[in-house]
Amino acid sequence: MTKVAVLGAGSWGTALSIVLADNGHHVRLWTHRREQAEAINQTHDNTQYLDADIPEQIKAFYSLEKAIEDVSAVIIVVPTKAIRDVCSELDKLLRQPVTIVHATKGIEPGTLKRVSQMIDEEMTDYNYEDVVVLSGPSHAEEVGKRQPTTVTVSSINSEKAAFAQDLFINESFRVYTSNDMVGIELGGALKNIIALGAGISNGLGYGDNAKAALITRGLAEIARLGVSLGASPLTFLGLPGVGDLIVTCTSPHSRNWRAGNLLGKGQKLDEVLEQMGMVVEGVRTTKAAYQLARDRQIEMPITEGLYAILFDDKKPKDVVEQLMNRNKRDEMDDITPFLNEHY
Amino acid sequence: MTKVAVLGAGSWGTALSIVLADNGHHVRLWTHRREQAEAINQTHDNTQYLDADIPEQIKAFYSLEKAIEDVSAVIIVVPTKAIRDVCSELDKLLRQPVTIVHATKGIEPGTLKRVSQMIDEEMTDYNYEDVVVLSGPSHAEEVGKRQPTTVTVSSINSEKAAFAQDLFINESFRVYTSNDMVGIELGGALKNIIALGAGISNGLGYGDNAKAALITRGLAEIARLGVSLGASPLTFLGLPGVGDLIVTCTSPHSRNWRAGNLLGKGQKLDEVLEQMGMVVEGVRTTKAAYQLARDRQIEMPITEGLYAILFDDKKPKDVVEQLMNRNKRDEMDDITPFLNEHY
Repeated sequence: MTKVAVLGAGSWGTALSIVLADNGHHVRLWTHRREQAEAINQTHDNTQYLDADIPEQIKAFYSLEKAIEDVSAVIIVVPTKAIRDVCSELDKLLRQPVTIVHATKGIEPGTLKRVSQMIDEEMTDYNYEDVVVLSGPSHAEEVGKRQPTTVTVSSINSEKAAFAQDLFINESFRVYTSNDMVGIELGGALKNIIALGAGISNGLGYGDNAKAALITRGLAEIARLGVSLGASPLTFLGLPGVGDLIVTCTSPHSRNWRAGNLLGKGQKLDEVLEQMGMVVEGVRTTKAAYQLARDRQIEMPITEGLYAILFDDKKPKDVVEQLMNRNKRDEMDDITPFLNEHY
Repeated sequence: MTKVAVLGAGSWGTALSIVLADNGHHVRLWTHRREQAEAINQTHDNTQYLDADIPEQIKAFYSLEKAIEDVSAVIIVVPTKAIRDVCSELDKLLRQPVTIVHATKGIEPGTLKRVSQMIDEEMTDYNYEDVVVLSGPSHAEEVGKRQPTTVTVSSINSEKAAFAQDLFINESFRVYTSNDMVGIELGGALKNIIALGAGISNGLGYGDNAKAALITRGLAEIARLGVSLGASPLTFLGLPGVGDLIVTCTSPHSRNWRAGNLLGKGQKLDEVLEQMGMVVEGVRTTKAAYQLARDRQIEMPITEGLYAILFDDKKPKDVVEQLMNRNKRDEMDDITPFLNEHY
């Protein structure tokens, strides 16, 4: 039994709190919105974000200082754009040694940093070895219902990864370890780009055959970028790659897919984001990946096409048709990222 | 413009005939059922199998001898279990040199042969170099509607593969070439096992998280067997692997998925097969893969679990729970097939 703070009371933070509570831990769920914290404590639900009963061992807080009192682990589940603010505040307030687990899937536009790097930069009193990433194919809605789910944890300190594994693992929530922290973070972040694309394809009226082609090529493309940034290509073949890509690209639960679907139906980005009412990480990640691909001269045609739709006002139909009709005749062109000196 | 015979007027044979007709070829669509051939010629549809208009250039035949008269290519799209009978008949009747393209996804139980090997054994007047495989993520229903689709062709004779590519390729039906004929055939056949499993998981009420885990591990498992049989692991990462797995496992269009779904809901195999009214290749393929895995001592837990459900009357729920709770703690266990001397 451990005292744990979960920072971020959106759907994923709430679902992870339920897993921790099921495992007998005391969970302190933090949100910066006072009315949300009070409502969770009164009603034991958080219906705006997740359709699930919230167990008694979860207490919600709107004071970060109180939420982290005496905890031995902090789980960070805020959107990528809030990571720096929350972590710099956390750095000031934390007085005890903690393991920091993050479950946020994104890359920072501009700096092009991964989430663990952003955490490390803001948490001056802690080391990079204290940070663990948790990622995998996992809709919050299903985790809240205790449906079978598998995720992976990784840290450059394998003891910290094992600690995080023990914290979360149970009968329906299986947690594996990996030593490829870079790949786990990049796989989780970059798949959101392909999910946006799969949604757009659906919104345009294309079917499963087109979606399969898009996901297959998308996997190759994000692996190509990931490998250039130090990830193992093998990670893209496991749960944090293929697995997460499948779950995100083939399910209407996924916000990135849903946002893409609306774009494909002809809505503008601003309208879509307003209508969603939740953060769509894939939009910012597309910008970051586009910059990374340009800097490193990595071929990422799907990412470039999405960038053109999101930020250059290109028509989705024109972009998808162009992607389908690329002059490519040998299938092996797409799987070259898996062919390199890492093997 | 080429004269082509398509043998097998099920949904996939009909859809491929439409692609060929769209490309201006004369198509002779063969079925052994006289009433079906006559109905196609009269009504220009084949609604039992495919919801699509059949163009005028497609003529249906119930005489194999007439269907193949003067054709320069024969496209074989009959179920695996009919391959030997049809090919031995074809061997007696054919008088001219032809390219033989097969689009049948299966492995023969007992002999454990791939479809191209079965064709080669029956077609004594022809060589293995005359055979091309066509495979990829492609629901017939979407091909019939000219929705964007990508497939791969392969032959040990690259000129024959290029000929097949030219025959089929058009704006909405993209055809790539590959030099891994073994991998293309095995990927297409073995993914049906995982599709059955994904359907069972759905029938049991499990969600997308469980499906993603199953598909990810399934990909590793079929690649492991494929590599032991001489396939390139890379093929399993492309359209005939990941791509076909996604389309088959995530869409109710797939018969294998549908059959699995009914099994998961508690129906018996006999009832399911009767209710489907179409061939479910995955059932025979599971038996063949199970035999291959035993012979070669390849670890295939999902295939073994399915075999137990299909042929040993094990309860789907028990098997899936056992698979979820396997004592596996490091994610890399699942991606080892991609780590070998092929790289």
